[in-house]
Amino acid sequence: MVYIGIDLGGTNIAVGVVDEAGAIIAEASVKTLPERPYQEVIRDMGNCTLDALKKANLSPEDVKSIGIGIPGVADNEKGLVIFCTNLGWDHVPLRDELQQYINRPVLIDNDANVAALAESYAGVSKGCKSSVLLTLGTGVGGGIVIDGKTWTGAHGRGGEVGHMNLVPGGVPCTCGNNGCLERYCSATAIIRMAQQECMAYPDNAMLRTVDGDVEKINAKIVIDAAKAGDAVALRVFDEYVRYLALAVNTITAFFDPEMIVLGGGVSQAGDFLLNAVRALLPRHLMFKALPGPRLELATLRNEAGIIGAAMLGK
Amino acid sequence: MVYIGIDLGGTNIAVGVVDEAGAIIAEASVKTLPERPYQEVIRDMGNCTLDALKKANLSPEDVKSIGIGIPGVADNEKGLVIFCTNLGWDHVPLRDELQQYINRPVLIDNDANVAALAESYAGVSKGCKSSVLLTLGTGVGGGIVIDGKTWTGAHGRGGEVGHMNLVPGGVPCTCGNNGCLERYCSATAIIRMAQQECMAYPDNAMLRTVDGDVEKINAKIVIDAAKAGDAVALRVFDEYVRYLALAVNTITAFFDPEMIVLGGGVSQAGDFLLNAVRALLPRHLMFKALPGPRLELATLRNEAGIIGAAMLGK
Repeated sequence: MVYIGIDLGGTNIAVGVVDEAGAIIAEASVKTLPERPYQEVIRDMGNCTLDALKKANLSPEDVKSIGIGIPGVADNEKGLVIFCTNLGWDHVPLRDELQQYINRPVLIDNDANVAALAESYAGVSKGCKSSVLLTLGTGVGGGIVIDGKTWTGAHGRGGEVGHMNLVPGGVPCTCGNNGCLERYCSATAIIRMAQQECMAYPDNAMLRTVDGDVEKINAKIVIDAAKAGDAVALRVFDEYVRYLALAVNTITAFFDPEMIVLGGGVSQAGDFLLNAVRALLPRHLMFKALPGPRLELATLRNEAGIIGAAMLGK
Repeated sequence: MVYIGIDLGGTNIAVGVVDEAGAIIAEASVKTLPERPYQEVIRDMGNCTLDALKKANLSPEDVKSIGIGIPGVADNEKGLVIFCTNLGWDHVPLRDELQQYINRPVLIDNDANVAALAESYAGVSKGCKSSVLLTLGTGVGGGIVIDGKTWTGAHGRGGEVGHMNLVPGGVPCTCGNNGCLERYCSATAIIRMAQQECMAYPDNAMLRTVDGDVEKINAKIVIDAAKAGDAVALRVFDEYVRYLALAVNTITAFFDPEMIVLGGGVSQAGDFLLNAVRALLPRHLMFKALPGPRLELATLRNEAGIIGAAMLGK
C-alpha cells in the first residue's frame, strides 16, 4: 500500500505517491488557479492524483489514504476546509469533492502541521516522540507532532505558534492582535528591524546591496550582511535571535518537546542562525541540570509538503 | 482495586485511598518535617499509607498503584525526585524507598500536573480530552492533561506555564530569567502591582484595609477592594486580568486544549475574575468564527492533590 500526499498551495498543487518509509515514488503537479470555482480546482487535484499513480504503475486500490496539506484550517471529521484565505475558500467540502475522482480515505491538515509531520517521519526529527516545527517565513507557522500524529488541538487552532503573544502591546499583527510572535520572528520582522536600523545608521552593507533603496531589503540580504560582519546587520540579526530564543524558551517551558525544529526561509541561514539561538538558550532554561529539547534545522525542503501530507494516513 | 494518592507538601503529607471514579474513601496525614533525612520522611509516608488503607478496611493487595504529587521535578522511569526545593531533595529514590513499606507500583509527578489531572477526573474538566490548568498562587504552576494522562514533556519540563516568557526583558524572576508569566499572573504579581499603585495613589481602599502598611497587602485585599469598586484596586485588577488573558491566548494559540482551568488562590476571586478574563479573550482570538477553549474555574480544593496523584495510576 502507498500513501498519496497533496501539497495544496496558492500557485501549484503538488501530488506525490509516497511509500511506507516516507519516500516519494512518483510525482505530478498542476496549477492551482485559485480564482476558479473550488470544484474545478479539486477536479484537477483528483486527475493529478490519478496521473501520479499512473506514473508509479499503481491504481487507486493500492492507495491507503490521501493526505492534503492546506494553507488554512481544516475540520478533519467533516472533511472540510474551514478557511483558506489564499484560495478564498470558506467551508469547502474538500473530502467529498475529491472522492468523486478517487474514492479513498481523505485526511486534511494545515500545511505547517504537515511540514512538522514530514520532518518527524523523514527529516531531522525522525524517531522523536514529540517535536515542534517553527516555519520562519513571511509569517511564522508551527506544527506539533506527538507520537507520529499532528496535534491540532481541540478546535483545530493548535500549533499557531506565530500568534502566541511575544510582546504585550507590541507591533500590530495581521490577525488583529498586537505583539504576536510572528511580528518578531518572521522574515518580515527581520526586514522591518533592518529598515528601522537603516534609517538611523545608513552606512551599512545592507543598504549598499540595494543601492540605498530600503524597500528592496529582504531577510537574505540582512543575514548575508550579518554573516559578512556588517555591524548594523549584526545588530538586527542579534535582535531577531533574541526574540527567537524567547519563543523557543516559551515552547520549552510549556510543552518540552524532544526536539524543536527551525524551518522556513529564514532557517536557510543555517548554522549561523542555529548556533546563535542555541547560545542564548541556557540563560533562559529552568532546571539547568536537566536536559532540554534539542534545537535543529529542518532538513526537508519542497518535498516536506507532499511527504507530511502523505504521512497523515500513517 | 483502589488507588493511593499522596500529596507531598512542605508541611504535611496527605494520603488518600481513592476509588476508580476518583472519590476519596479514606484519608490519613502526617507532618512532613522536611529537615529530617529523606528516609525518615518516606518511612512516615509509607506508614501513613498503611494507616489509610486500614481505615478503609483494605490491604496492600487491594492497591493498584501509588501516585505521589511533589512540589518539584520527577523522573518517573527511575522513580526519582530530581529536584524538590521546598524539601531540599536532590535525586531522592522515592519509589525504591517507599516500596520497602508497601510494595506496589509507584508513580511520581509534579503537584501542578497532578492537580490538573484531578480536575480532569473529578473536577471541572471531567470528560475533556485535553485541558490545561493554571494554578495562580505565590507562583504560577501549570499542568497539561491529554487523554487522561499528564503531559510532562520529553524531559519532565512540560507544563511550567509560570516560566513561559510573557514580557521580554520584564520583571526579574526567581528562576534567573526575566519577564516570566508568573511575575505577572501570580498572587505575588497582584501584590507588587498594588504596592506600586499605592505609592502613586495612596487614597484607596486597599491601604485603608491595612492601615497604610503596604507590606500587609495581599491578593485577597486587592480583589475584595476591586469587587467593592475601589478605583485604584480596579486598575490593579484590570492590569492583572490583561496579562492573564494574554497567557490564556498564548496557550490557546499553541496548544488549543478543550478547556483551560484557573486554579490556585487567586482563582478564589471566582466569577469576578473568570468573567473579566473571558471578556478579553475574543479580541485576542484568531479565527473568531471557530470555537475556542472553554475557560473555567477549578472546582476541587485541598483534595485535588490526593485525587490527582491517585489518578496517575489510571
